Amino acid sequence: MQSALDIYKKHTKKSAKLFERSKRFHVSGVSHNIRFFEPYPFVTKSARGKYLIDVDGNKYTDYWMGHWSLILGHAAPKVSDKVQKQIDNCWMHGTVNENTIEFSDVIQKAIPVAEKIRYVSTGTEATMYATRIARAKTGRKIIAKIDGGWHGYTTDLLKSVNYPFNQSESAGLTDESHIISIPYNDLEKSLTILESVKNELAGVIIEPVLGGAGCIPATKDYLTGIQEFIHRNNSIFILDEIVTGFRFRFGCLYETMKLDPDIVTLGKITGGGFPIGVICGKDETMKITDINSNTRYDRSYIGGGTFSANPMTMTSGKAMLKFLKKNAGPLYKKIGKLGDDTRKGLLKVFQDKITVTGMGSLFMTHFLKNGITQVTNAEEAAKCDTLALKRYHFEMIARDGIFFLPGKLGAISYVHSESDVKNLLKASERFAESMQSHRI
Amino acid sequence: MQSALDIYKKHTKKSAKLFERSKRFHVSGVSHNIRFFEPYPFVTKSARGKYLIDVDGNKYTDYWMGHWSLILGHAAPKVSDKVQKQIDNCWMHGTVNENTIEFSDVIQKAIPVAEKIRYVSTGTEATMYATRIARAKTGRKIIAKIDGGWHGYTTDLLKSVNYPFNQSESAGLTDESHIISIPYNDLEKSLTILESVKNELAGVIIEPVLGGAGCIPATKDYLTGIQEFIHRNNSIFILDEIVTGFRFRFGCLYETMKLDPDIVTLGKITGGGFPIGVICGKDETMKITDINSNTRYDRSYIGGGTFSANPMTMTSGKAMLKFLKKNAGPLYKKIGKLGDDTRKGLLKVFQDKITVTGMGSLFMTHFLKNGITQVTNAEEAAKCDTLALKRYHFEMIARDGIFFLPGKLGAISYVHSESDVKNLLKASERFAESMQSHRI
Repeated sequence: MQSALDIYKKHTKKSAKLFERSKRFHVSGVSHNIRFFEPYPFVTKSARGKYLIDVDGNKYTDYWMGHWSLILGHAAPKVSDKVQKQIDNCWMHGTVNENTIEFSDVIQKAIPVAEKIRYVSTGTEATMYATRIARAKTGRKIIAKIDGGWHGYTTDLLKSVNYPFNQSESAGLTDESHIISIPYNDLEKSLTILESVKNELAGVIIEPVLGGAGCIPATKDYLTGIQEFIHRNNSIFILDEIVTGFRFRFGCLYETMKLDPDIVTLGKITGGGFPIGVICGKDETMKITDINSNTRYDRSYIGGGTFSANPMTMTSGKAMLKFLKKNAGPLYKKIGKLGDDTRKGLLKVFQDKITVTGMGSLFMTHFLKNGITQVTNAEEAAKCDTLALKRYHFEMIARDGIFFLPGKLGAISYVHSESDVKNLLKASERFAESMQSHRI
Repeated sequence: MQSALDIYKKHTKKSAKLFERSKRFHVSGVSHNIRFFEPYPFVTKSARGKYLIDVDGNKYTDYWMGHWSLILGHAAPKVSDKVQKQIDNCWMHGTVNENTIEFSDVIQKAIPVAEKIRYVSTGTEATMYATRIARAKTGRKIIAKIDGGWHGYTTDLLKSVNYPFNQSESAGLTDESHIISIPYNDLEKSLTILESVKNELAGVIIEPVLGGAGCIPATKDYLTGIQEFIHRNNSIFILDEIVTGFRFRFGCLYETMKLDPDIVTLGKITGGGFPIGVICGKDETMKITDINSNTRYDRSYIGGGTFSANPMTMTSGKAMLKFLKKNAGPLYKKIGKLGDDTRKGLLKVFQDKITVTGMGSLFMTHFLKNGITQVTNAEEAAKCDTLALKRYHFEMIARDGIFFLPGKLGAISYVHSESDVKNLLKASERFAESMQSHRI
């Protein structure tokens, strides 16, 4: 059998050439470190519905879906119709615009904690402001995050992202001492750590489903226990729902667990695929950012940025959320069912070689290794055979036209169908067999 | 004469109502602090060419131009034609895309320091990464910035933005000790400060024209002297050309002064009005960010973000730069001449009441006060009568349909004409007369 590498190289000759050019212009050839994979990533020409199409004309059924932000698939007509029209009225105003107000009305109705909203352009900016607000509001400095928790590149949260979590994430950081890290889904250990810094603890930031670090849902007990501590300690509870907001239901995940966060950050799906970050908070939390009722030194400086609430993002986000609201029932049922089928199917295919994490339309395969039998936190995920996962994903890219960003979780969108799941499972079967025969 | 406030209120009734709604959703009613002005900002419905059009149907000749990012005016057809087409191929890929490579080719040819490029979504992110790279590359911690220098909201540079510069900019910051501040255009004092921290000095970041703090060009001697110190000290020289890149010529401003920066940050005009930040650097500087030739702890972690190099921004930026390149001669000559005419005209109108700063198509009026006779740095700008400037701008909004974001500099775009300058000067004359008669 021809190797996946040979097939890939044969079918992506234009990409190979273009990526060589890209390396002349860009660090590591890419505009986002994780977009690189060996031997070179194909170069996308266009995308439509469930497909990414590369410059060689290869079509890939896409489970990466724009960093999981495209829940309706690529170039969804319900969104594109609106953004097409907005272009004539300009993509950039730099002033208060009507679309923002309408969009916020939808968000506020969907997410109770969004008593006040501030738009920024990225998730990184949203979490940066959220931590700043927590520190300003409490007058304390320490932010606790989860081992493996990923909240973007902000210096304020760049710690304990990659295993092992006790080592620095980057050269050039100045202030890692005000970030501490707690183990996910281990309430007892987490509380012990939080207790030890309680007088300096400004806030805790958690994703209710650990995204980048393995697609791992938090248990309700864990989140409830952490929240209880935070509230008792008068710290700020930040839920980062950049991945999970509007992913499983029309609204956030926290409500399904009856949680009561002070701040929720949104991004990805919320903007319909245009650049967005959102800080949603309770009035009593957000008022510290108000320019009209605080002096410069008392308030938390949150801005927005040149592109904040730009009319394209507002239009796209509004179109996305209105569609999701109208179709929430069948839509979340459909993609949730496809997710269930995928998780069950993968377990059946790979048997005891893997565990599958995720919920609803998100799923991730973990090839078991190092005595790991279940994955409930980022350490267990990191100890699995991540190279096998990348190989599995690459095999599907090369042989089946199925695209996962190698090593990352998969996101099912409304444009995926039962036949896509079947194709994915069929491709997985072939990989399972090759593992058997080659003991790879 | 009816007051400007009464006229404004009369003509912006829908805006008044909508902004009341906006305050229910948004902190201070806005998505960017500086977009608020008294009694309430009008709400934009659309924008075309030189005009902003509000929800009451008022048209404003716009000198704010989307935070100075729209050098061809709003909804420029040369850009909109291309982005319209891109929408069908999706606005978000999340993978390496063809547009990025073509766009970078244009940038690299225009800007020699761009031996390597990394795209992000905002200027804030670009300057954050630039400082991180400087720290990683040098193994030192201190970044020097200018009194009044504004590089976005990143925690790494949030110091000495607003006068007085020795006070904190925000509650909730943790690490202001690794940022130091030097006085603009005062080489001797600046060098004394830099000398005092030279062993810990990772880099210096400077805008060659101080944007937010008064539209003040740096002298060539100042920048050359600072650069000399930096190079001798093996620190990193970061020029923040987010405002100035492609503003005065096809390329950056630094080349006109024969400067040799290590890193240049871009934004605004470069993206054609879509969200962008760019880190451009020399190979030897940028290689510390390479994922393939550094271990995790040795490299500077720069990412990109979900929306980095998204196909809309890449398409828009490419269309913008290609148009600027083709039309550079007449375009920069035209807007530069209009800028000159405006500066001269304003001085003639206001006589010794003001000074005007700026260069090329950027200009800013400063009403003299507190013994200030010239404005060469942010302190002098701050000591001028900033309330008079806001009143002047508001008068023109209300009476003349001319929009400056009150208190901010004006940017002339290719769609502005001589008659716009005349109208601006006429409106300024009326304000000058009212100052005379009312001694306001």
